[in-house]
Amino acid sequence: VTKRLEKFKTTIFTQMSSLAIKHGAINLGQGFPNFDGPDFVKEAAIQAIRDGKNQYARGYGVPNLNSAVAERFKKDTGLVVDPEKEVTVTSGCTEAIAATMLGLINPGDEVILFAPFYDSYEATLSMAGAKIKCITLRPPDFSIPIDELKSVVSKNTRAILMNTPHNPTGKMFTQEELNAIASLCIENDLLVFSDEVYDKLAFEMDHISIASLPGMYERTVTMNSLGKTFSLTGWKIGWAIAPPHLTWGVRQAHSFLTFATSTPMQFAAATALRAPDSYYEELRRDYMAKKNILVEGLNSVGFTVFPSSGTYFVVVDHTTFGLENDVAFCEYLIKEVGVVAIPTSVFYLNPEEGKNLVRFTFCKDEETLKSAVERMKQKL
Amino acid sequence: VTKRLEKFKTTIFTQMSSLAIKHGAINLGQGFPNFDGPDFVKEAAIQAIRDGKNQYARGYGVPNLNSAVAERFKKDTGLVVDPEKEVTVTSGCTEAIAATMLGLINPGDEVILFAPFYDSYEATLSMAGAKIKCITLRPPDFSIPIDELKSVVSKNTRAILMNTPHNPTGKMFTQEELNAIASLCIENDLLVFSDEVYDKLAFEMDHISIASLPGMYERTVTMNSLGKTFSLTGWKIGWAIAPPHLTWGVRQAHSFLTFATSTPMQFAAATALRAPDSYYEELRRDYMAKKNILVEGLNSVGFTVFPSSGTYFVVVDHTTFGLENDVAFCEYLIKEVGVVAIPTSVFYLNPEEGKNLVRFTFCKDEETLKSAVERMKQKL
Ligand SMILES: CSCCC(=O)C(=O)O
Ligand SMILES: CSCCC(=O)C(=O)O
Repeated sequence: VTKRLEKFKTTIFTQMSSLAIKHGAINLGQGFPNFDGPDFVKEAAIQAIRDGKNQYARGYGVPNLNSAVAERFKKDTGLVVDPEKEVTVTSGCTEAIAATMLGLINPGDEVILFAPFYDSYEATLSMAGAKIKCITLRPPDFSIPIDELKSVVSKNTRAILMNTPHNPTGKMFTQEELNAIASLCIENDLLVFSDEVYDKLAFEMDHISIASLPGMYERTVTMNSLGKTFSLTGWKIGWAIAPPHLTWGVRQAHSFLTFATSTPMQFAAATALRAPDSYYEELRRDYMAKKNILVEGLNSVGFTVFPSSGTYFVVVDHTTFGLENDVAFCEYLIKEVGVVAIPTSVFYLNPEEGKNLVRFTFCKDEETLKSAVERMKQKL
Repeated sequence: VTKRLEKFKTTIFTQMSSLAIKHGAINLGQGFPNFDGPDFVKEAAIQAIRDGKNQYARGYGVPNLNSAVAERFKKDTGLVVDPEKEVTVTSGCTEAIAATMLGLINPGDEVILFAPFYDSYEATLSMAGAKIKCITLRPPDFSIPIDELKSVVSKNTRAILMNTPHNPTGKMFTQEELNAIASLCIENDLLVFSDEVYDKLAFEMDHISIASLPGMYERTVTMNSLGKTFSLTGWKIGWAIAPPHLTWGVRQAHSFLTFATSTPMQFAAATALRAPDSYYEELRRDYMAKKNILVEGLNSVGFTVFPSSGTYFVVVDHTTFGLENDVAFCEYLIKEVGVVAIPTSVFYLNPEEGKNLVRFTFCKDEETLKSAVERMKQKL
């Protein structure tokens, strides 16, 4: 393995999902629903396959999907973007992240990251040769220490990489925090790379795309995907929206990372994104109910549950149960209790910072959530 | 755009396919069939979608596909590989290439490449920070100048990147050439990255995987995909086969480039790879007929057609028609004749070397091939 990747281990999601299978444990670890996506989207994929939409898509997306992404973005943010010049379809948001880093970050560029962070951020920044400046979000509400953020900006800082609603904490960046980030970026001529894959899972406040703040669109790459919103995480359709000069970099990297993304799935994604508002409302209502079941359950088990405003994750403090750290706790939880959670220390540059916290997902049917809670009540 | 990508343009395939649409020209440029993949594979994908195989696949592949890849490889090469430790499923062979470079090549490593080469090779080597040593295949048969190859190996050489059957020329590496490469690699402890996506389109001789030569498996990453063999180029299912120590690097890069590949398409790919031998025989027979139509047609138009043993491409010398170079010829061909071909100069480090050559594909139905020939006969 190369130097750029030697510090990384098998991703925690892969590790935990294989342990779940091995131990027959209930998997509240990796964020994939145990229920299926909507029929109208599945049928659209089937139709596309039957219709012979099975050859290479245009590299940056089938025109129909580029348009659907632009339409959705306009509904969500009010911003009008050119689907031909400002939208790039990728193989999941993970590829959008990789293409953004490799297409826009030069070796030695400094990029600011908020810990805890999704593991691919650090790995793709390493592939790009970036220097990482890491700011830790402050529990219990995982707020941004704005002064600290300001203090790490240097003349080599090129970008801020952010994620709202935030995996793993469920934190949503507040209007004040977004304003502060925007000012900082405008003053220092920084880019923003914003991963917003959980934007439709916003429970306590409305999601705000930082691209919609004054002066920000021209310096922002907004990344999103189909998987979480349509309970089809395995389809791997994502996209990046950015002004043409940034889109150029993203597209160039994308061209050589995967060239193009599954054609029939792109047609289905276009259909999905044009779902009526009622689809999104129902999704949110369903997840709200699931969230309540899990959060109440975790409270009743005796965890300290941190407030989560969005995503399908919640983070808890496990220390009342007396295990040494998050990894030891998760091991105990799998083997002795039969439930899988995700240790959070892997989401920090300094693993110590995550040692008290573990993440649970509630993207499972209510029965499964209740069984998991029941197991923990009985065996923890 | 970053320094690592600034020398690259929009890929020639994207450029030419959009020109084809714009001018209503017959597209014998980018290599995608204008006929559909087999029903049994499409039905397998539909079944997987209906069966709810729609969530994240295991990062390195659904077990069923990893096994099917290993079975196929055994049939083709006699080599027995562990599907769990030596097979990585990727989003097309393009991603397998990118993951191999980013996972196994460090900055400053020298990698040997044969020109002409598929454009992603150079771009992903640039992403990895490799130094490229380029050997030009010698027309008319595009043979490897073995002495020159030997002479460029230095103590910094890490790998040879090869492609057989070869895009764009249709050349297949001979047993003697493969032996020479193998000796060189073993003597100098080099890796081989072998792109074999056209292995089932071998017309004049049998395809040989370099991994099957004595002492080679342990130092080879063999890359392949579903698209060409099953006329489903848009599904983007590829894989890399390599011993565990090399697989580790490929998987680590893959984890952070795309994480996983479309789940339902992976199930369908597993079904495809288990097709009876008759499928492969028929495919080859069909392509042989197409090849004859195109080659005879191009000869009758007045081109010098270079011998092609495999792939669905042939290269011709266009200079009898008096255009300045390959790019000018292709432009004329699109606008005045209504046929799209691919200029080959983009496949060389030194574009001059490709200025007399253009590539045509015969992955089109016979009617289309005949019409293209007819247009050229009348207007060239
Ligand atoms: C590849 S796992 C993707 C992210 C996610 O779903 C998780 O954080 O669990
Ligand atoms: C992305 S185009 C892939 C390769 C190919 O089909 C071609 O060379 O035309």
